[in-house]
Order: sequence, then structure tokens, then C-alpha cells
Amino acid sequence: MILIGERINGMFKEVKQAIADKNKGVIQELARRQTEAGANYLDVNVGTAASDQEGAMQWLVETIQQSCSTTLCLDSQKPNVIEAGLKVADPNNGIMLNSTPVNKKTDEEVFDKYLEMAQNAGPKSCLIALTMDKNGIPQDVDTRVALAAEIVQKVMEKGFDTPRIFIDPILLPVNVPNAQAQAGNILSALDQINYLSDPPPHITLGLSNISQGASERSLINRIFLAMAISHGLDSAIVDVFDHELMNVVATSEMLMNKQIYSDSFIKAYFSAR
Amino acid sequence: MILIGERINGMFKEVKQAIADKNKGVIQELARRQTEAGANYLDVNVGTAASDQEGAMQWLVETIQQSCSTTLCLDSQKPNVIEAGLKVADPNNGIMLNSTPVNKKTDEEVFDKYLEMAQNAGPKSCLIALTMDKNGIPQDVDTRVALAAEIVQKVMEKGFDTPRIFIDPILLPVNVPNAQAQAGNILSALDQINYLSDPPPHITLGLSNISQGASERSLINRIFLAMAISHGLDSAIVDVFDHELMNVVATSEMLMNKQIYSDSFIKAYFSAR
Repeated sequence: MILIGERINGMFKEVKQAIADKNKGVIQELARRQTEAGANYLDVNVGTAASDQEGAMQWLVETIQQSCSTTLCLDSQKPNVIEAGLKVADPNNGIMLNSTPVNKKTDEEVFDKYLEMAQNAGPKSCLIALTMDKNGIPQDVDTRVALAAEIVQKVMEKGFDTPRIFIDPILLPVNVPNAQAQAGNILSALDQINYLSDPPPHITLGLSNISQGASERSLINRIFLAMAISHGLDSAIVDVFDHELMNVVATSEMLMNKQIYSDSFIKAYFSAR
Repeated sequence: MILIGERINGMFKEVKQAIADKNKGVIQELARRQTEAGANYLDVNVGTAASDQEGAMQWLVETIQQSCSTTLCLDSQKPNVIEAGLKVADPNNGIMLNSTPVNKKTDEEVFDKYLEMAQNAGPKSCLIALTMDKNGIPQDVDTRVALAAEIVQKVMEKGFDTPRIFIDPILLPVNVPNAQAQAGNILSALDQINYLSDPPPHITLGLSNISQGASERSLINRIFLAMAISHGLDSAIVDVFDHELMNVVATSEMLMNKQIYSDSFIKAYFSAR
């Protein structure tokens, strides 16, 4: 399971404040602790509050890199903010870009722009692509899979290996009216996305979205994560500080035969990471 | 989710002792508490220790029926023990028989015998049938599904409605050597068993088997149950006293759109049962 730590995000108060105060300690502590907790990537999102988003992204990247070499996942819907981060990112660490929707005729440049940035960022770079387009986020299974197929086709045409693409079928909160079927639809989409290419693309989800504004947040996150792993999810953007969630990751990997059972399988899983 | 409470089983020390002492209070308390905790059926298994298994089964059935009318699930591999229980079971409560393997040429009578007992036990009776035959428990997906198809065909031929059959693909413990792939295989089998007939058979599992002898028993049970529900499992033999497991049931039902989200969805789920 490829885990992307979600905590360095300007949406969180302490991060927003640290960016405003240029408080390196807070950010470096989050980077170090998420890495220790099992994060393979660290998401880096300046949030919407920073007036100079490009500057904030560069400061975050430089600050994190001074304390650890965990691969960063530059997270912005604005290509110029991603580009600013790429300028200061250490190419030896690898990089992930997060994220682009599928382009349609009139805004072809969005997807192409992100793919081009990923391709120029070195041979280990990865890109998260969302199954959404100008029509928004699809509610049904077929449109999600069709958009995923479009993503796979586009990256194959550009010579970008499919395992370097992370398809995100986009989780909506369970409390959104008229979206009650979406959790099941996402699972059905996962079943199919795994067969789009050989080797298949990775699949990722912003897990915490599903419980946004809901009660029992950790429980909902945990149960849906177990379900999704059993349908082929192999990556997620998560709160790696949620200890119970991490136990779910280890247990799911063992049950899906990614790790042999031993009496200390949870400890063994995290030791091996 | 159709839940079968597993606790009235002579394998448990307190039940074994209560059977030996003819201590009605212990059994009636287990029956009442399991029903309150959300059990739709109460499994009744005399265990292997009782010298007079038929007498013990009758005593258990009569004892439980004096305190509640929850449908019983008579659990024995011996048809004569089931028959003894049926003689004293209240036909108004409905009944479930647990369980028979698929018969093969030379022991055709086993499956037929259980099906005949179920058919004679009234129009609401149900039967749990295991996907195993004289060759034992299959490890692979295809044999499990083929045996399930054989079960469905047999009951259709006898005019027994498919929703009255509960197919049990048989969980093995995660710590059994050479069975590491079985959890994933069971899930793949579930995907297919749902399409064997319309309306489909129910599917059930003896959930606690998966963690027999393992560490982190409740965690393993919970995670596998969430996965299995997302692959179409609609019944399970469980420890309904495991509060966290019951929260997983409620959360899984909500995520799979069997219940609409509300902030008190867990409470709402159990209130509606």
C-alpha cells in the first residue's frame, strides 16, 4: 500500500499558521512524524489562504527537504504553483504531482500541462489524475471507468509508463445528498480500473473526503479503506497519525496476501516499510 | 445483514457447563442478550462433549424457547441431532439448519437428508450449505463457485426457493499454512455466487473462523467482514457481543447504501432491526 500523508496542508490551522509565521519547526515535525508513521509520500498543499501560493509552496518544499528526503507530492490545482515547487524540489527524491482532471477539447492544456511537468521532473516522477472533466465528478461507474480509460490511453500515447499514473476516482462525502450510491460505485470502478492496462495504473483516493462533515469519521474511513483495498486500491492519501487506520492497512495487506500472517503481523508490516 | 449469534455453542466453556448442569439461566441470558445485541438467528450447537447430543439439543431448544422467540439455527453435522431439535422447535418461529456439505455420488444422502428436513420444517425454514464435498474444502475460487452452483441447481430442482439457501464458502484461519490466498479467494467467490440465480442465494460465513488461533482476533474479524460485505456477503455467524464488530456491520451497510447516512446512523441501524 502506497500511503501519501495528508497533514502538510494549509487547510489545517497549524499548517496555515506555520506558513504565515515561516515556522519551520512545525512543518519539519509533521514531515518527520508522518514518515515515521509509514507515509511513503508527503502531500504538500499550501491551502487557499496564502496570498503568495508559489512562494509558500517553495518555502514548504525547501523546509521539508532540510529535514527529510521523503518523496513529496506537490498538491495544487494551479500549474504555476506546482511549477514553483518543482523548481526547488530535489530531483534525487522523486516527485508526485497532485492532480489533474481529464481534459476535454476546450481545456486540453490542463491535463497535458500536468503530464508535461511530470515527464520533465525525472524518470521516477508520478502523476495523480482525477476521473473528472468539464462535466464535473461522475456519479456512475461507467463514466468513472471511461474517464480512467481515457487517462490511461493519453499517458500511453505520450510514453509515460502506466504504473507512474495514479488514478483517483474521487470520493465524495457520505453525507452528500443524492450520492448515497457513490461508495459502492467507487468500489465497482476500482474492480474495472485494475484491468485497463498491463501493468495496471495505480489507484489512489483522498480517503478522508468520505467522512467530511460526518460523525464517526475514523470508523467510516477505516471501513471504507478495508473495502477499497479488497477491490484493488493500492494507494491512498490518508492521516497516517490515525493509529487504528494504520492497523487496518496492515491487516488488509495481510488478508489480501500481500504479507504472510505471523502473530506480530502489524509490527512486521510497519518494520518492513 | 442477517446476523446469526454464535454464542450458544458447547465449544464455549460456560455453555458446556450449563448443558452439563442443566442450568437454564445461562442459556436464556445468552439468548436474550444476543437478540438484544442484534442477532436475527441464534445458533444452537451442543458441541462435542455432551454424551447425549440429541437430548442436549432438545434441552437447549426448549430452554431458549421458554425465554424468547428468536429464530433458531440448529447446528450439527449429525442429521439425527438436527432431527431431535426439530421435534421440539416451535414452527411459528421459523428455523434454520446448519449445515450440510455438497453431496457426491456415494454420500448423496447427506445433502438430500438436510434439504428434506428443511423442506419438512415449514415454509420459512432455511438451510446453510457448505461449498465442500468429499474432497474437502477447496482452496481455489473456481471449485468453490462450482460447488455453490451445484447447491443452487439441487435446491431449484427440489422446488426450494434460492433465497432460503445460505451458501457458506467456508473461511479457514489466516494462520493455516498454504492458505494465505484464501481470504482473497473467498471474496472472489462471493462476487460470483451473487450471480448464480435470480433471486440469488444468501451467502453466509462463520466469521470468527478466520482469526482462530491468531492474534488481533477482533481486528481481523472486523476488517474481513467489511471487505466481505462489500463483495456481497449478506449474512454471517458472528459474536454479536463484539461491539466494535457491530459498528462495522452498521457502517458497512450505510456505505453499501443499504441505509441512508445520518449523524446517528449506527444507532438508527440497530433501532431499525
